Amino acid sequence: MNKTEETTNLPNWLQRSADNTPQKIAISTPEIEWTFAEFNQQAIQLAQQLATLGIQQGSRVALLASNGLPFVVCVHALIRLGAILVPLNVRLTLDEQLWLLQDVEAMALLSDEHYAERATEIQQSLPTLAEGRLQLERATQQVSLLNVPHDPDAPLLDEIELEATQAIMYTSGTTGTPKGVIITYKMQWWNAVGSALNLGHQADTDCWLLCMPLFHIGGLSILMKNVIYGIRIIVYEKFDARLINQAIREQGVSIISVVAIMLQRMLAELDASQQRYPATLRCVLLGGGPAPRPLLEDCASRNVPVVQTYGLTESCSQAVTLSPADALRKLGSAGRPLLPVQLRIMDEGVVVGPTQPGVICLKGPSITTGYDHRPDATAATIQDGWLATGDVGYLDNEGYLYVLDRRNDLIISGGENIYPAEIEATLLAHIEVEEAGVCGQPDAKWGQVPIAFVCLRPGSQITSTELLAYAAQRLARYKLPRAIHLVQQLPRNSSGKLLRRELPKLL
Amino acid sequence: MNKTEETTNLPNWLQRSADNTPQKIAISTPEIEWTFAEFNQQAIQLAQQLATLGIQQGSRVALLASNGLPFVVCVHALIRLGAILVPLNVRLTLDEQLWLLQDVEAMALLSDEHYAERATEIQQSLPTLAEGRLQLERATQQVSLLNVPHDPDAPLLDEIELEATQAIMYTSGTTGTPKGVIITYKMQWWNAVGSALNLGHQADTDCWLLCMPLFHIGGLSILMKNVIYGIRIIVYEKFDARLINQAIREQGVSIISVVAIMLQRMLAELDASQQRYPATLRCVLLGGGPAPRPLLEDCASRNVPVVQTYGLTESCSQAVTLSPADALRKLGSAGRPLLPVQLRIMDEGVVVGPTQPGVICLKGPSITTGYDHRPDATAATIQDGWLATGDVGYLDNEGYLYVLDRRNDLIISGGENIYPAEIEATLLAHIEVEEAGVCGQPDAKWGQVPIAFVCLRPGSQITSTELLAYAAQRLARYKLPRAIHLVQQLPRNSSGKLLRRELPKLL
Repeated sequence: MNKTEETTNLPNWLQRSADNTPQKIAISTPEIEWTFAEFNQQAIQLAQQLATLGIQQGSRVALLASNGLPFVVCVHALIRLGAILVPLNVRLTLDEQLWLLQDVEAMALLSDEHYAERATEIQQSLPTLAEGRLQLERATQQVSLLNVPHDPDAPLLDEIELEATQAIMYTSGTTGTPKGVIITYKMQWWNAVGSALNLGHQADTDCWLLCMPLFHIGGLSILMKNVIYGIRIIVYEKFDARLINQAIREQGVSIISVVAIMLQRMLAELDASQQRYPATLRCVLLGGGPAPRPLLEDCASRNVPVVQTYGLTESCSQAVTLSPADALRKLGSAGRPLLPVQLRIMDEGVVVGPTQPGVICLKGPSITTGYDHRPDATAATIQDGWLATGDVGYLDNEGYLYVLDRRNDLIISGGENIYPAEIEATLLAHIEVEEAGVCGQPDAKWGQVPIAFVCLRPGSQITSTELLAYAAQRLARYKLPRAIHLVQQLPRNSSGKLLRRELPKLL
Repeated sequence: MNKTEETTNLPNWLQRSADNTPQKIAISTPEIEWTFAEFNQQAIQLAQQLATLGIQQGSRVALLASNGLPFVVCVHALIRLGAILVPLNVRLTLDEQLWLLQDVEAMALLSDEHYAERATEIQQSLPTLAEGRLQLERATQQVSLLNVPHDPDAPLLDEIELEATQAIMYTSGTTGTPKGVIITYKMQWWNAVGSALNLGHQADTDCWLLCMPLFHIGGLSILMKNVIYGIRIIVYEKFDARLINQAIREQGVSIISVVAIMLQRMLAELDASQQRYPATLRCVLLGGGPAPRPLLEDCASRNVPVVQTYGLTESCSQAVTLSPADALRKLGSAGRPLLPVQLRIMDEGVVVGPTQPGVICLKGPSITTGYDHRPDATAATIQDGWLATGDVGYLDNEGYLYVLDRRNDLIISGGENIYPAEIEATLLAHIEVEEAGVCGQPDAKWGQVPIAFVCLRPGSQITSTELLAYAAQRLARYKLPRAIHLVQQLPRNSSGKLLRRELPKLL
């Protein structure tokens, strides 16, 4: 059946929250706190300035800014104009950013005070790009565009059309050439609803702490939950374990999204300051890749309510979540798909049964419809509505997902599939190991062999030979790393995800 | 913009709940308790029997049954087949039911043991109607069709297509000829989500008590919330204040949907048994028409968490809800629209401003797209996506809805609009008055004049003359009832809604 439906329009989410609960705190930073009414007013005023730059419905607008109020207000101002947000990863090189701006055909570049210099460099290379400088004026607590008048007649949208594109987010680049993932309002809505149905929704008391980069979907999607749920969020510019632990203890944070390395640092800081988390913290959403088992066990023993999730840009952040009720029983699993999401495991074009590994495929209204102007990549990735994530995993007999690895990190050695995450998990289970990364190394005989990179805990004296002996007792021979290199730091992207293909550079 | 989107498919909601939480209690009655796994299995088995009757995708299937497991399982079995449910109001006369079955072109009639006789009468008049008798076999705790084999090859649907029609529900008949309101899965989904975003969602502990008729949207929509939220429901065949109060006290009921007359009886029973409601009861959803102010004040003084709502069949039950936080500040208001719903007040084709009364109009994905094979009625009621409810109300300066009356009950006296609910509220504020109903009476001079019918509290000695004097101090002269008639009972429909046009029959 190929029926079609008319588009679904909703009232602007921020406006509706401002109408419903004008005096409720919407957003806090260490410096400023805004009610929903104030927040909404900021978005409207900034939209009137953006309109003066020529930004209108369908305009593609790049944003180069750190986590903070200018970024947040800009997101909502663009929604009011129906313009498309293209958040730039601030860690990219100038050349990478220039490539991306041209690839996406951005008509404007907005930046904040932290990236003013880079914005100037960009504009020298792309002089036709309209430019705007976002600033937060501390005295008036206003976010505005420097030296740009307001257009009071700017046509602002009262409604959100779910089918419309909200953002184009370039995949983090752990694999191949960056592609622009189309993020619609529909995806954001269904992701938020699916998450609330799973985690519960406590309209009066929930407060979500945001310390993930806003230029990644894990951060941006929290901005949408902020206004769809009508709950308070706390935004931090950077990850700082001490400040975050303090906010959890003192400010009623109920939910926080983190990756494993962040959570490790938070727990270490907690120990150092001899503190515990209060019961108000009801959910620590742990995403960004397979989590080390010792970390999960540590959390379980402390009653830290860790909820493992699996998601990617293409699924608008979390798609699979382990319910708190299952956290202990299914330690290490990413859980079950959120209600709007369907999941199956495919191998060689066939759906495989329980316990059989294969590519994780997802379908549902929170999954992207494709990549911007990449019909070939879209067709290769999405078939009959099913997105092939490229990640490898299996379902257990109860339908719980276990993520094995990123497909593109797969090591094939003498015809055997080797999943780096499995070897990493083995190494991480050693008490002296703080971080571990595994990749393939070309080998004349086997094609590839695994090699490992390990950061030890401070003060550890263990040798790589001892670690190898430890691993040899726990891993099949073909999975045993050819070498274990002790290093100070592993390469990670800005959201903390391990960049395995950059590991060889450490040699 | 007239973009279209592809249809959105979700996994079957009951199946997904059974997958997620197979061992969780899904549904309780005084006799039986089923887990989600058991419940799902019942629906699948009954679907296999229904298929044997020739019921398939798109079949229109009438259901004549009391509130209970046969009704509930049948609803989900029809979903599995993609058939369209047409629930029959059990209080209709034989002739009314025959008219409706022909109007909707039902291909089958299913009934339970309570309505077997009526079903036989119907089939004598409509012999082409396929017939099936639902039974709950107490010994095996199985719902099945009497003497019908299973078709194990019946094509059962794994997905729910949101655009598809789930049910056709005839409007309750308080006004004019019944019309079949199209209820899609999309409406049910958005209603459930809008409600959860407003009331909160506590996946682990929520339990919804269902004592509204399942053949009305107020009951049916709770069956969908049961499986969308994955929460337990308790189903009662009839409203019984004592049993309901007992369930609230002893079974962890967190939400209950009622109309005013039910709540009054529950509170009276509570007083008689000298009990209080526990804190687990977090929401008493009060719908079905304007609530008497003394009832709301009584609830406020007892800390009964009343949440007033406004909705109708066309909006798939609640569309406007007063948040618990506003319950006292906005006593008497129905609140603000749920997030997916937009609301405006129209008078003479123009949107009117705050405090101006007019027809309540609603728009959004939980609002019906129209009436079954009634293009004229659909066109007259829905314009540009806005449904004119026919009810009269106004918004205050903060956008809170106050429902004045049903448009069709409006009394026009000497050119002045008189809202029966206003006069009823005045009478109900008198301590001796238990129920009040007001309607118009033809009058040679004024066109119409209001008359009132009152049920007094047990033991009251007040006279109608004294009541009239009381009302005369509080109402404008033209609103004062020409007469107040003391009666034993007011005419109400099966969901407890006052039938004003039947009041004159009491004379």
